[in-house]
Amino acid sequence: MAEERLEEFFKEISEDLQRTVNFWLKYSHDEEFGGFFNCLGPSGNVYDEAKHVWLQSRQIWMYARLYNEEEQFRKPEILQAAVRGAEFLQKNAKDPKTSKLCFSLTRDGRPIKIQRSIFSECFYTMAVSELHRTTKEAKYKDEAIEMFDKIIYWVREDSTDMRLGLSPLPGVSAVNSMAVPMMLLCVLDQMETMDSSMSEKYADVGEWSLKQVLAHRQREGTIILENVSPAGGELPGSAGRLTVPGHAIEAGWFLLQYAGKKNDKKLKKTAIDDFIVRMFEYGWDTEHGGLFYFLDIDGYSPVQLEWNMKLWWTHNESMIAFLMAYQKTKDLKMLEKFETLFDYCYSKHVDKENGEWTGYLNRDGSVCMDFKGGPWKGCFHVPRALLMCKQILRDILKK
Amino acid sequence: MAEERLEEFFKEISEDLQRTVNFWLKYSHDEEFGGFFNCLGPSGNVYDEAKHVWLQSRQIWMYARLYNEEEQFRKPEILQAAVRGAEFLQKNAKDPKTSKLCFSLTRDGRPIKIQRSIFSECFYTMAVSELHRTTKEAKYKDEAIEMFDKIIYWVREDSTDMRLGLSPLPGVSAVNSMAVPMMLLCVLDQMETMDSSMSEKYADVGEWSLKQVLAHRQREGTIILENVSPAGGELPGSAGRLTVPGHAIEAGWFLLQYAGKKNDKKLKKTAIDDFIVRMFEYGWDTEHGGLFYFLDIDGYSPVQLEWNMKLWWTHNESMIAFLMAYQKTKDLKMLEKFETLFDYCYSKHVDKENGEWTGYLNRDGSVCMDFKGGPWKGCFHVPRALLMCKQILRDILKK
Repeated sequence: MAEERLEEFFKEISEDLQRTVNFWLKYSHDEEFGGFFNCLGPSGNVYDEAKHVWLQSRQIWMYARLYNEEEQFRKPEILQAAVRGAEFLQKNAKDPKTSKLCFSLTRDGRPIKIQRSIFSECFYTMAVSELHRTTKEAKYKDEAIEMFDKIIYWVREDSTDMRLGLSPLPGVSAVNSMAVPMMLLCVLDQMETMDSSMSEKYADVGEWSLKQVLAHRQREGTIILENVSPAGGELPGSAGRLTVPGHAIEAGWFLLQYAGKKNDKKLKKTAIDDFIVRMFEYGWDTEHGGLFYFLDIDGYSPVQLEWNMKLWWTHNESMIAFLMAYQKTKDLKMLEKFETLFDYCYSKHVDKENGEWTGYLNRDGSVCMDFKGGPWKGCFHVPRALLMCKQILRDILKK
Repeated sequence: MAEERLEEFFKEISEDLQRTVNFWLKYSHDEEFGGFFNCLGPSGNVYDEAKHVWLQSRQIWMYARLYNEEEQFRKPEILQAAVRGAEFLQKNAKDPKTSKLCFSLTRDGRPIKIQRSIFSECFYTMAVSELHRTTKEAKYKDEAIEMFDKIIYWVREDSTDMRLGLSPLPGVSAVNSMAVPMMLLCVLDQMETMDSSMSEKYADVGEWSLKQVLAHRQREGTIILENVSPAGGELPGSAGRLTVPGHAIEAGWFLLQYAGKKNDKKLKKTAIDDFIVRMFEYGWDTEHGGLFYFLDIDGYSPVQLEWNMKLWWTHNESMIAFLMAYQKTKDLKMLEKFETLFDYCYSKHVDKENGEWTGYLNRDGSVCMDFKGGPWKGCFHVPRALLMCKQILRDILKK
């Protein structure tokens, strides 16, 4: 019975959070140049010195959040590392004229790559926003608001600077990619956590993003597609048929959180039924366990070579989603799905010896890549999920 | 005994070539807008209408080559399709001012994406060059020479236009990526096939490209790395440790061909020993068969998620390499490796019912993606390998 395991879940997850944070504290800090090494092998060895800005920003955010919310992590070394990380990005990654941030840097901070998207900028905004919660310094709050306003301007008014001045080619169709409004909802939640008056300031952004995310609910609510047309219809081709079950489930808990703030029962039901439960059932591999990474809604082979792999972050986000759904509904079916995910992750992904999770598994659950950090995996999905699940479990157990 | 199977190899490969060409003739032609559908499902269904320019150009080249070199394919419909394909690209994909070609187009020819590299342009050059052999029309030869001169200028003198005017960022290290000089050797061979006087015109390009490819032979000749420094040393990080065994083996037969033209015995030995045989032994999966796609020379997990997959083209290129090595040395060990590859491919990749090959297999050889054509797989590696192997086997059997 899943309910009888609540204490066990809490204990395992608490220990795992401590191990995971220890891993990053021990191996990732670059004392010489600042910032964090994020390409770390199975036991913490640096196998590539490049610094990826999504991951640098997320680690700053994570450290500040841990410092703010969990007593055991309220340590000067954690705060100091977050502050130094932000200094590294401010100095090296951000263009003060355009507010664009790079995607990757050399160890000593020279830009390697810039993306024509909003993600480096959004994660950086989250980082400085959470740092304001910790330090109360006005500069971080000012920076967060200035960045968020810029991002909103790029998304909703003029994307020229975000696209580095390059126009889209004539054959590129306009697309509502779910990642963009999801990201705005996530940053908005962070801004509200920093300062509750932000809800009012950005109310319109919240409603717009919500509508944009819900437009991905297609075929009478039976599927969540990654890409839809700006008018809310399906797009042709492989991109139009693409689903990422773990991403839809992550969107589900963003919506569930939003529904809670607005006390919106209809949205709560849509989030749980259509984004979380149905997409879990759709995406779960009944043969080997784990969520498929990509699927094509009409059953064609996805064109992404990694489609059948099992990735840590989809499981992290699903753990949060089902535990939050259980917390908000007391529906035992939600806890049972969490149990399924917990058992999968703690037998396949978790490294109890070295800390952190093995991120990339083959379809059958065997290890495909053994590293703990890479160009797309840093100090974020694992500790965020463990922290949130620990907090939710503590709340449930208290009652 | 591999030698006793020569007739069988010839027969199977001849039938497979016919099936494969039939597949593309039957399903890929877009009679309405011109060009070719290249995203084709297992039995030829169009699952995405985008047209990828590498593949469009390669199909034109392949059709013209088949028309020129194999009696059974000397058919007006094949020539006409090649000519119409070139018209489609000239009209839609090429910028007449800069000579840049797009990477992908919509079905009706509107540009979706442009790469800052030379590959679309190189495959297009090969296509028009081979069309000159077929049609004898001066315009194709002029176009091929003009394009090749432009490409050489980009690679060796000024890459600004190739990079669409964008400068590399300050953290990007200069790199000798093996794909570039390999591509130049391949286009050069095509130009010589079109007109033998090209050997003299481009002699310097040949020698330069040869030197650039050989610089990838590292650690006393024991390994072929994908990326080295311009000075010929190893680069740091994952990119510096990357090997693609099937790509090194393909480079091997390019070098073997070059050595034959120059009657260079030392180069012949290097090509066979270091690029072909050693990289095959390094890259072959002794547990499940097939060549790993990517490996890290120091044994770290490669960062490419598809590293352990088995891809059709690496096996196609290896079939050519070992059969050519056997033809040129009469060393039975080469034929035995060819036999190993033949048996792997004809049990895993080949689709005798529908024609063409299933391109993307999981590590264990099971099908990962069932399509015959996709954004990176078109009418090229399979028919080129089958045509070349058929021609080599015919030559061997004649003697």
